[in-house]
Amino acid sequence: MATLIAPSNNLPHEDAEALRKAFEGWGTDEKTVITILGHRNSNQIQQIRRAYEEIYQEDLIKRLESELKGDFEKAVYRWILEPADRDAVLANVALKSGKNYNVIVEISTVLAPEELFNVRRAYIKRYKHSLEEDVAAHTSGPLRQLLVGLVTAYRHVGDEINAKLAHTEAEILHEAVKEKKGSHEEAIRILTTRSKTQLIATFNRYREAHGTSITKKLLDEKSDDFQKALYTTIRTFNDHVKYYEKVVRDSIKKLGTDEDALTRVIVSRAQHDLKVISDVYYKRNSVLLEHVVAKETSGDYKKFLLTLLGKED
Amino acid sequence: MATLIAPSNNLPHEDAEALRKAFEGWGTDEKTVITILGHRNSNQIQQIRRAYEEIYQEDLIKRLESELKGDFEKAVYRWILEPADRDAVLANVALKSGKNYNVIVEISTVLAPEELFNVRRAYIKRYKHSLEEDVAAHTSGPLRQLLVGLVTAYRHVGDEINAKLAHTEAEILHEAVKEKKGSHEEAIRILTTRSKTQLIATFNRYREAHGTSITKKLLDEKSDDFQKALYTTIRTFNDHVKYYEKVVRDSIKKLGTDEDALTRVIVSRAQHDLKVISDVYYKRNSVLLEHVVAKETSGDYKKFLLTLLGKED
Repeated sequence: MATLIAPSNNLPHEDAEALRKAFEGWGTDEKTVITILGHRNSNQIQQIRRAYEEIYQEDLIKRLESELKGDFEKAVYRWILEPADRDAVLANVALKSGKNYNVIVEISTVLAPEELFNVRRAYIKRYKHSLEEDVAAHTSGPLRQLLVGLVTAYRHVGDEINAKLAHTEAEILHEAVKEKKGSHEEAIRILTTRSKTQLIATFNRYREAHGTSITKKLLDEKSDDFQKALYTTIRTFNDHVKYYEKVVRDSIKKLGTDEDALTRVIVSRAQHDLKVISDVYYKRNSVLLEHVVAKETSGDYKKFLLTLLGKED
Repeated sequence: MATLIAPSNNLPHEDAEALRKAFEGWGTDEKTVITILGHRNSNQIQQIRRAYEEIYQEDLIKRLESELKGDFEKAVYRWILEPADRDAVLANVALKSGKNYNVIVEISTVLAPEELFNVRRAYIKRYKHSLEEDVAAHTSGPLRQLLVGLVTAYRHVGDEINAKLAHTEAEILHEAVKEKKGSHEEAIRILTTRSKTQLIATFNRYREAHGTSITKKLLDEKSDDFQKALYTTIRTFNDHVKYYEKVVRDSIKKLGTDEDALTRVIVSRAQHDLKVISDVYYKRNSVLLEHVVAKETSGDYKKFLLTLLGKED
């Protein structure tokens, strides 16, 4: 369930005009920006972008960049991109800033196969490089094999489960991932080519056979980037809602909020399952996500996030 | 340039009716089958398939399978599939029959990125497995890395060349491919992620620096499947017309024609560049391709291939 509250009767041209008015004169009327863009779904926003361009011969995104600042600007920018384009930007930023391979794993495992392919299309359009080209250039060894395999996968979507395969591959994962014996080649093959349904059957089979989940106690302070990416891959396939709850929790728990992570989850999921993530958050932490967000952020950035969370200030 | 001669004013319903008539009564009128299907492009054939289904509630492909036999049946079957579906079938047959990884390399390197992606879509639709899943299941080690990387690539298409990169990567290829030093990881990264334009610049740079092409004397009788696939990858990127000329030449040169290979090249390229391949064949062998095909094949199979070659018997 989404948290976004978007009326279905908006008029793109009126929205474009109202935004233009908000930019004019002294300073920017941020409240209007939030009220409009925080209450439109991605299709509506693309219509507004086109209407704005049509009327004013100006790119709405560029104008917003010059009108807004800081985390608020970043959040608005990410929110109003087409979803595939947003993920392309998030992936590129993650690669360039080094080390946040979780973003690459999220995009590859949470999106549907066709959506992931659209991100690859958007990535090429924007950067004139393929996504896998940039992933491969920033990594090496098993981490490269895993991440390139994840971003380039086009998996079968269906209910078919091969129980025998789940059995065999649960044991392969046990050896490679849990016991850390031998090469990771087969574990990577399984995680990068099997359908999501088949993988979940394999993880379930693992739990039955070993009495614990495959990710349990998998990471410690010595874990390297590959092990972390492997862990995230299994977690996001298994239950991406629980995974996102943890990302949000960590982003707030730190000394100084990790705005990038918080923004990423909220803009990426507001139109999809942020309500579910927020419920799991409440269950886990006994505090409402919107209260924590209100406490840990401020100004227009706070107002915008709360709007996307379906809770105006 | 194509060899296929297809009039633009065909009527799908009339073609469907004529085919039906050819199936009725004693035996099949193969001549009509050849005259119609050998003179229609893939769009026209898909229209005929739909018209046939509409009028007779029967699958044209199934009917043809029961009417025709041997190499002729196989050639017609492959010809009338949608191109992406045909390549999915060719890839699957190559994987199941083991060892002909050249077919996987061809599909991955000759097709445009969007076409290759359509093959992956068609493959999943037909087999409920992803193409990379089946490639990975049939291979291991560097061969798997190369082939999975090739089939899953979605490369940038464009004229941009990074000359510095071409320089560096020509040397990486030299070390890994020619000198066979160290790991193949970087060579595989280059061949599976760079754009075709960039790769050709790299191969050209190689030739300048080393006075010979990278594939020269690369293979000998001790070469393994990985080395063969690597060789084919570089050749098809460099000049797939020359590559196909060699496939055709080898298919005929053998004691007993390799009908599968001959059929594959003719049905795959008749609508694209078979004329060019045929010209290169003539230049290389001083004999017309259609004469060799007429000499080495027989019956309706021969008539059908010659029709696709634009030369009726």
